[in-house]
Amino acid sequence: MKPYRSCFRPEIEALAGYQPGEQPRMTNLIKLNTNENPYPPSPQVDEVLRHFDNDRLRRYSDPDSVALRTAIAEHWGVTPDRVIAGNGSDDILTMIFRSFTAPDLPFACPDPTYSLYPVLAAMQGAPVIRVPLDRPGFHLPADFADRVQGANLVALARPNAPTGNTFPMAAIRDLCEKCDGVVLIDEAYADFADDNCAGLLADYPNLIISRTFSKSYSLAGMRLGYAVSSPEIIAGMFKVKDSYNLDAVTQAAGRAAYLDQDYLRDNVQKIRQERDRLTAALTACGFEVNPSAANFVFAAPPDRDGEAYFRYLRQEAVIVRYFPGDVTGDYVRITIGTPADMDRLLELTRHYLANR
Amino acid sequence: MKPYRSCFRPEIEALAGYQPGEQPRMTNLIKLNTNENPYPPSPQVDEVLRHFDNDRLRRYSDPDSVALRTAIAEHWGVTPDRVIAGNGSDDILTMIFRSFTAPDLPFACPDPTYSLYPVLAAMQGAPVIRVPLDRPGFHLPADFADRVQGANLVALARPNAPTGNTFPMAAIRDLCEKCDGVVLIDEAYADFADDNCAGLLADYPNLIISRTFSKSYSLAGMRLGYAVSSPEIIAGMFKVKDSYNLDAVTQAAGRAAYLDQDYLRDNVQKIRQERDRLTAALTACGFEVNPSAANFVFAAPPDRDGEAYFRYLRQEAVIVRYFPGDVTGDYVRITIGTPADMDRLLELTRHYLANR
Repeated sequence: MKPYRSCFRPEIEALAGYQPGEQPRMTNLIKLNTNENPYPPSPQVDEVLRHFDNDRLRRYSDPDSVALRTAIAEHWGVTPDRVIAGNGSDDILTMIFRSFTAPDLPFACPDPTYSLYPVLAAMQGAPVIRVPLDRPGFHLPADFADRVQGANLVALARPNAPTGNTFPMAAIRDLCEKCDGVVLIDEAYADFADDNCAGLLADYPNLIISRTFSKSYSLAGMRLGYAVSSPEIIAGMFKVKDSYNLDAVTQAAGRAAYLDQDYLRDNVQKIRQERDRLTAALTACGFEVNPSAANFVFAAPPDRDGEAYFRYLRQEAVIVRYFPGDVTGDYVRITIGTPADMDRLLELTRHYLANR
Repeated sequence: MKPYRSCFRPEIEALAGYQPGEQPRMTNLIKLNTNENPYPPSPQVDEVLRHFDNDRLRRYSDPDSVALRTAIAEHWGVTPDRVIAGNGSDDILTMIFRSFTAPDLPFACPDPTYSLYPVLAAMQGAPVIRVPLDRPGFHLPADFADRVQGANLVALARPNAPTGNTFPMAAIRDLCEKCDGVVLIDEAYADFADDNCAGLLADYPNLIISRTFSKSYSLAGMRLGYAVSSPEIIAGMFKVKDSYNLDAVTQAAGRAAYLDQDYLRDNVQKIRQERDRLTAALTACGFEVNPSAANFVFAAPPDRDGEAYFRYLRQEAVIVRYFPGDVTGDYVRITIGTPADMDRLLELTRHYLANR
């Protein structure tokens, strides 16, 4: 056997890799660690799967996802050339980082935020500018736009993950005005918030808004995301995209789910109600709960030992997400589940606090 | 509105982009242009779709595609840590180019070959070494391994596209011996050939073999491919891969199709028979048909005007693939269809030749 010699690019060799949230194979767990929706997707998705013509699969899927993109564009009130669809918003993010970051094209983001961003930048060999969020509250610092000058791509998750709070629209507009690069607003959780940045698209051609079907549409297992931007940005991203990045089933099922906006609205409403109830109950227990506009809360137990609380819940078969670190280690991130899930979490929490 | 300013990496700005084969929306065509399978996928795929539990989709799919990779690994007689699955072999190729090519890490391939390779290299800013194949026959030149010295990644499609012929095993082994970089053997069409390179994996840790479900498994519309290599290479590619690159339906349907090897074998057998019949019939009409080990033939009409023949067929609602260019322009690439498809093609061809 010829000896192995690494031929990986040094950036890849050095990469720790992104750690996705645990997907335990046990089924008797309450899984509140990856912000999945506790309710099933629209029944329209079921219809698509059940009646899908097997023979269609021998043909390549539409490389341009025209029917899906048209449905999205109509809802947004834009032309389809301003929309691109991806194999999860991961695929969208990958296209964006491959398009706009490089060793001489830095990336910037707040800290903490979605931990995938710096990994994608590192794969491109791009420098990363991290701007700490103001505490308490994880607010965007007033000089954020100035501190990211020189970045060719700035990403903000709004609502932010894992902190759950949103950022003022005026700050986003300020950033779009001052930034010479591309501004990505990752709106993975925007359906759970009071507002979104769609209204800024008309003013800023270098603004990209990304969305996912994984949270509000209950389709994490189907892998579907999209971005809306200017026709110029979308055309460039199309060159980077894998030709047939979305399979035929996903295109059809995703479109069916998207057209069922009534189902989405009801679902979101239930989750928002439960989020408010959980926030109030944890606050009453002495937790610091960061105000959330998403389908999760970022909450610190009274003794600020996020890890111990996380471990206790895990041992009781409730899985939440813990992010080790100086700032994040005080907290856990809890996905909003069904009322029964939240009742169980609160019951365990009260027991935990009583026995500390 | 703020004026648009391009922030794309210069490599992306300069990119022409890959042109996939036409996916016409008309349905009364005989479509022989993208090497799709004329037969539907295994009935097991239908079963998976029809009985898929909608509620599973709200959860993320298995990021490691364990059940699917285990089935593949068992069939190959290797451990699952030597297998990675992708969203089509496009996804696999993208991971490979992002792993092993860069401005100082050149890419090499024969010419002509799959036209996506140089596009992927260009996105990475990597130099491309193209080694012309010997004609007639599109054989690998005897000094191929010497001429690709210095490349960090060498890709060979075996059988080659669009020429259809295979390359001698001894030449592949010679390449693996001499090459200091990674050797990718793209076996998209290997199920239609007499042999494949699986036997070389034990000797060469920097060999990657890629496969697709798009051709022999009739699952072009499902987007599924995979690669087999050493554990070291696969572990590195896992770092580059999007976390949840395969949806839950594709993992389950792909596994079901893969386990139905009897169906595959029958299907492949029918296509090989038809390939031999078409080759003989076109040769009898005066065509030069390059000996094919794939599910298509690369054939030059007697007057060597590939484009005129292509246009004639298109006007008669039979779509084949034409690759403009000095070498390829003499030919068209014809996907093997059903016997009825091939009868219609031959009928039109005889009419075409009689009226030239």
